Amino acid sequence: MKRKYISTIADTLRECGLKDGMTLSFHHHLRNGDHVVNMTMDAVAALGVKGITVACSSLFPVHEHLIGHIKSGVITGLDTDYMSGPLAKAITGGILPTPVMFRSHGGRPRAIGEGSLKIDIAVVAAPAVDAMGNITGTEGPSACGSLGYIIPDTQHAAKVIAVTDHVVEGGLSRISIPHDVVDHVVVVDKIGDPAGIVSGSISLTRDPVALAIARNAQSVIRASGLLQDGFCYQTGAGGASLAASLFLREDMRAMNIHGGFLLGGITKYMVEMLEEGLFDNVFDVQCFDLSSVKSIAQNPRHVEISADTYANPNRKSNCVDFLDAVLLGGTEIDLDFNVNVTTDSNGNIIGGSGGHNDAAAGAKLTIIVAPLVRARLPIVVEKCTTLTTVGSTVDVLVTERGIAVNPARKELADKLRDARLPVCGIEDLHDQAVRMTGKPRPYERGDKVVGTMEYRDGTIVDHIYATK
Amino acid sequence: MKRKYISTIADTLRECGLKDGMTLSFHHHLRNGDHVVNMTMDAVAALGVKGITVACSSLFPVHEHLIGHIKSGVITGLDTDYMSGPLAKAITGGILPTPVMFRSHGGRPRAIGEGSLKIDIAVVAAPAVDAMGNITGTEGPSACGSLGYIIPDTQHAAKVIAVTDHVVEGGLSRISIPHDVVDHVVVVDKIGDPAGIVSGSISLTRDPVALAIARNAQSVIRASGLLQDGFCYQTGAGGASLAASLFLREDMRAMNIHGGFLLGGITKYMVEMLEEGLFDNVFDVQCFDLSSVKSIAQNPRHVEISADTYANPNRKSNCVDFLDAVLLGGTEIDLDFNVNVTTDSNGNIIGGSGGHNDAAAGAKLTIIVAPLVRARLPIVVEKCTTLTTVGSTVDVLVTERGIAVNPARKELADKLRDARLPVCGIEDLHDQAVRMTGKPRPYERGDKVVGTMEYRDGTIVDHIYATK
Repeated sequence: MKRKYISTIADTLRECGLKDGMTLSFHHHLRNGDHVVNMTMDAVAALGVKGITVACSSLFPVHEHLIGHIKSGVITGLDTDYMSGPLAKAITGGILPTPVMFRSHGGRPRAIGEGSLKIDIAVVAAPAVDAMGNITGTEGPSACGSLGYIIPDTQHAAKVIAVTDHVVEGGLSRISIPHDVVDHVVVVDKIGDPAGIVSGSISLTRDPVALAIARNAQSVIRASGLLQDGFCYQTGAGGASLAASLFLREDMRAMNIHGGFLLGGITKYMVEMLEEGLFDNVFDVQCFDLSSVKSIAQNPRHVEISADTYANPNRKSNCVDFLDAVLLGGTEIDLDFNVNVTTDSNGNIIGGSGGHNDAAAGAKLTIIVAPLVRARLPIVVEKCTTLTTVGSTVDVLVTERGIAVNPARKELADKLRDARLPVCGIEDLHDQAVRMTGKPRPYERGDKVVGTMEYRDGTIVDHIYATK
Repeated sequence: MKRKYISTIADTLRECGLKDGMTLSFHHHLRNGDHVVNMTMDAVAALGVKGITVACSSLFPVHEHLIGHIKSGVITGLDTDYMSGPLAKAITGGILPTPVMFRSHGGRPRAIGEGSLKIDIAVVAAPAVDAMGNITGTEGPSACGSLGYIIPDTQHAAKVIAVTDHVVEGGLSRISIPHDVVDHVVVVDKIGDPAGIVSGSISLTRDPVALAIARNAQSVIRASGLLQDGFCYQTGAGGASLAASLFLREDMRAMNIHGGFLLGGITKYMVEMLEEGLFDNVFDVQCFDLSSVKSIAQNPRHVEISADTYANPNRKSNCVDFLDAVLLGGTEIDLDFNVNVTTDSNGNIIGGSGGHNDAAAGAKLTIIVAPLVRARLPIVVEKCTTLTTVGSTVDVLVTERGIAVNPARKELADKLRDARLPVCGIEDLHDQAVRMTGKPRPYERGDKVVGTMEYRDGTIVDHIYATK
């Protein structure tokens, strides 16, 4: 058996039959330290190929580099779950000939599995590869831990390329992607910049507003009655979310609760709870910091999962379905509890669902944590500028000034009132916010559609328009 | 999220829409201790359903129980890689209305992946299941280690049922099959009889013929020049094969060789070589004894692999392609080096390829180890009664009376002669054998086709006929 090594990305793409109009897929575990998307698209451009759709699970400021390839017609389509930075700004400005397809982290593997997102070549940014072509994310100079978001791509793409900067002569002890789905391995100098891949450590906020929100959020969880043995939890890496997990930890110790699993993007605060024995497992689709990268490499209870297992709604079940509670952020939440995390109130693309609408749909208790006002704009609005997460899947909005419960969850509102939490109507929070900021000038959108919002189940729920 | 528990197998089959003519798939990791195939087919019969095809990766003496379900028309088709015991005898006698489809361990996942073996319901004999429906083979009273052969089924079957006798309240630390492919979990008293699942310990042969063959086989490996750093190896659990791995171990120590991986069905002799550091990895598609079950649960370098990764020829690569050497048995080997491990010389079904023709096709050096004569019948024959493994993939036959090299491998024959090994023509071995046994009476086959021999790539290479 020949090893599957080819010397350059360009030669490998040629070997894979790259041609105009193909879809190339990538993943975002190297986050803002990723070199692989940019260097691959440079190779595509050098080969004179045009009209490529780049399907990448998320895009970061480092991918500003792609703007040139859009201008030259090398890239004519984007398919992603999240986008921030200069590329997002350019997209909002209308640079791309077709709308960006915005999916969720569960909707993406759904689309791949059902064939509506057909991948010609999947490119894995591979922190370590062995002689056979097995891939792990846990070793090497660009170690990033879980490779969960690219696993579905490797199972369905016509061709799979691993781009690595670290070839292990001995065997790997943790295999993220087995060699039997890998066509070729390319060795490059550097697949990423470690400084941008994971935070050395994520430190907790000292912002009193964020801490007040965090305390309220944990009070909601406690009052909900869900904090029992077997409790399963997801939270993001935002300031209030991280702080809330410390309060959760205190409660679990005090109440002698033994949890089930922690889910999602993983940080040291989750790793510590696992190591303390407060939870049975961490199910990890992405590591956010060095602690979690180290843990997934060493702790057998810290389990790498694919995006299919995490949140694909077409599977028999997915991890989000087993969540008791999830804490999520929002750039806007409206009077129907719909949430926007894709654009700001001026229509600028600043993110995307990621796992937002997946976790919201799955969890028994979905809590949105947000300050009432951000940058002199109200967060609670009449109607979201862009719909990311549907209000029927959102249970509670927690702000520093009050807690609003979805009217469909009356029994939950009663429990929170019984616990003497500051429950109010979401209209009250909206009024308070508008009193603080003044009524915001309505945003005037342009005519060109620059983004299509696909809900996790495949329904198109909104469109994003170019700014005027 | 509701847990996926249903109280009885019959109710679960009904929930899965069981109806006449469906294909139910099973696996053989519980070997001759398996209760699940029998109890599931009892439930099918109790529901009054008929015309089922049972696709089980291997069938053992314990599955004699299925004969009644064949007689009553509940089972009308079988699809397997190996079959022994009373059921095999009944099949040879012509009991089944359609020929058994015999595949290899790599051909089976190939057929499942390409859709030529379409599975309606896959039934996993699950040694341990957690609350979500994640499955592991490494815990519980019926622990069997790897569940590699059923993994492809769970990824492609319309419905997947886990039958277990051990529900873990806390999380699993090693997940063989993730919950997102599992529809339902059924809890029964016992999925198997530990005494039949794995050997407590497999002891080495003291048979001088087997030891002579083993010594010759290891001499062939040494003389081939393949025994270098990175050496990858597979062997079976037969007497000569196991003994040969001890001689390999001695050679590796003496020559200071550091190997790559050990592959296949795993025994304590392989585990010991892994633990001693002679190899980087064990890639395990099935555990044969308690030592290997313990090792796969604890040693991160002892890696569970699916049958796809092991040997599916439709994948981008598979483990057998990376083998340097494999030792395999044979009930017959003919003058063209074709090998039969499916029937005896009287046409009785006594086995099947399992991984035989996969490993032979993949390995750089394929060695068949066999005594010249067995039960007063020659092993070297003019033409195999049934073709399991094609001669072009076989390099050497090692017997206690001489070593025959495939004429297509002249350079290998030269190396063996240079090492003063007793190389001779395969015709010479045939003549010797016939001198010992007399010319065997030609076997007279009946007219009815009872088995179809599918080679790993999907080609039909032979048929098995009912005995007269």
